Amino acid sequence: MEPNSANPVLVDVFRGPRVESCHRGAIAIADAAGRLLLGLGDVARPIYPRSAVKALQAIPLVESGAADAFGLSAEELAVACASHSGDQLHLDAVRSLLAKAGLDESYLACGAHWPVSEATMRALLLNGERPRAIHNNCSGKHAGMLAAAVHLGLEPRGYEKPEHPLQVTIKRILSETCGVTLDPDLMGVDGCSLPTFALPLSALAQGFARLGTGAGLAPERARAAERLMDACFAAPVLVAGEGRFDTIVLRGLAGAAFTKGGAEGVHCAALPELGLGIALKVDDGAKRGAERALAEVLAALLPKAWAVLANELEGELHNWRGRLVGRVAASAKLQSALRDLLDAGDRTATAG
Amino acid sequence: MEPNSANPVLVDVFRGPRVESCHRGAIAIADAAGRLLLGLGDVARPIYPRSAVKALQAIPLVESGAADAFGLSAEELAVACASHSGDQLHLDAVRSLLAKAGLDESYLACGAHWPVSEATMRALLLNGERPRAIHNNCSGKHAGMLAAAVHLGLEPRGYEKPEHPLQVTIKRILSETCGVTLDPDLMGVDGCSLPTFALPLSALAQGFARLGTGAGLAPERARAAERLMDACFAAPVLVAGEGRFDTIVLRGLAGAAFTKGGAEGVHCAALPELGLGIALKVDDGAKRGAERALAEVLAALLPKAWAVLANELEGELHNWRGRLVGRVAASAKLQSALRDLLDAGDRTATAG
Repeated sequence: MEPNSANPVLVDVFRGPRVESCHRGAIAIADAAGRLLLGLGDVARPIYPRSAVKALQAIPLVESGAADAFGLSAEELAVACASHSGDQLHLDAVRSLLAKAGLDESYLACGAHWPVSEATMRALLLNGERPRAIHNNCSGKHAGMLAAAVHLGLEPRGYEKPEHPLQVTIKRILSETCGVTLDPDLMGVDGCSLPTFALPLSALAQGFARLGTGAGLAPERARAAERLMDACFAAPVLVAGEGRFDTIVLRGLAGAAFTKGGAEGVHCAALPELGLGIALKVDDGAKRGAERALAEVLAALLPKAWAVLANELEGELHNWRGRLVGRVAASAKLQSALRDLLDAGDRTATAG
Repeated sequence: MEPNSANPVLVDVFRGPRVESCHRGAIAIADAAGRLLLGLGDVARPIYPRSAVKALQAIPLVESGAADAFGLSAEELAVACASHSGDQLHLDAVRSLLAKAGLDESYLACGAHWPVSEATMRALLLNGERPRAIHNNCSGKHAGMLAAAVHLGLEPRGYEKPEHPLQVTIKRILSETCGVTLDPDLMGVDGCSLPTFALPLSALAQGFARLGTGAGLAPERARAAERLMDACFAAPVLVAGEGRFDTIVLRGLAGAAFTKGGAEGVHCAALPELGLGIALKVDDGAKRGAERALAEVLAALLPKAWAVLANELEGELHNWRGRLVGRVAASAKLQSALRDLLDAGDRTATAG
């Protein structure tokens, strides 16, 4: 990522008349066959997808038969794909998922952090408590992995280690879905202690196209992916929380766009109706840049996203007294790349 | 900030063996005469300094005679230069500053946000209260401005507006100290509703060299600057809070380095003993990048900074279970630029 290979500016942050900050990054849009429709910036360099691939990490929960055996609800499946706010409904879903597998929160290996949820934070503080693993935004994913491990007859303790059979399976699913080999030097450790494997944005985009369409996946994997996405569309608040990007998209564009963000500015999307997958990373890791860029891409590809993501597209920045002081805007470069993409689509349509 | 003018990478964020994210930006190091010793990246483009210039904004409080008339303590002067955590000692200092000027917190125009301080946040939640203007990290600066306005016989209400005589004075001080003309198109509105004027990093660096040395300033301004910095060295916890970068520097390098961060990745420093000023901005606005870059610059220029900033220089990233998962590191580009700067200094010393 040295100067001669600088990714383009995707998002400009204005204060008054001037650009105050900007976010560079790369975006890949691909179909299930791996055809790259847009490759803006370096989409070949492996990046850690972090929480953006939680739906892929949740596939064994369904594919193994655990979801059926435990009679998991849409809420429980959705929270297994979530980076949740730690609101009461998230905690309830994680607890019931664990309980159906015969476990409790003491099995969670994700570590603790203060939840986004102000209500839960307040409850903890009022009780003089510190946050626990269940309050971690990843606790649903961990609960889902534990349930899968129990159903598969695997030792649940140690489920988070790279050598645990469940993580070996998840690595294989990631590799097969995205069409890449995952060498040991591509592994990092995530904030929640699970392995995270770096892979190119182009491969991630293809993987999400397959996730959304089932094309190129074995039938049972395609069904598992569809069931997980349907659960997220049915219970969008479980996947993030009220007011958060992914919940807004899953609720407003149910069936048309499945999105999931990860730490350090990663965001992925599956657009089942269009047969496309999107993967982007902001170089500096800022969610502000990733969400604004993805909103622009979604609005370009899905006309109904304009209304659903109106606030995100406006990108208004207000100061502590509520005064409008700036704006988070798609860069000229991103806008022109999306125009070119749409023009190319029109030409293909006309030629066809 | 388009690709052909990309600033260099200043800081790399590693996860496991790979760079996960990076922060680009620009750094200026100058002396009081405006000689640029280091200009890494675009140091000529005007940037909003935000809270990094709070000590400059506090000059009228001393220069006007208000500090003497009201008998302000080091704590009260330090909090007037602060981006504070909202701990009890910060709130106490702001309240006493206001009280000495015959005012109360109802005059503060900075707006409200949740404080960094967990203790204060807990107290607010326990009482079912929302944060008020006094909890805003800028409340000390605003209290100082109010005290200056009262002492100068100005109407305190409206002190935050660009046309208020106090803000006109502050604009003139900023302009004179940094040696730049501040046109209206350089003005943005800060998070706390005050005007913020964009100016080049090279000018900011010169301004901080003058602030630290008094060179090039009128005698009464030089004395005001020295008194404010001495207050910050005497009460470093008032300027930020326990565990925070500026408090660590002001406490550990008292007299040798005055640092002050601002929003959106700005950080400035005065090194009185070396006669230098430093100004940097991370393009994407991340404090993570700005603090790590400044730590590297301080360590290069001040050998004793190595011990004071050991944790910041290590830059260890731990996950939610406390496991080391990565590192925030100065880029090769920044390290080589600092080596070149020191080599040039050695050559000058040898030649001299």
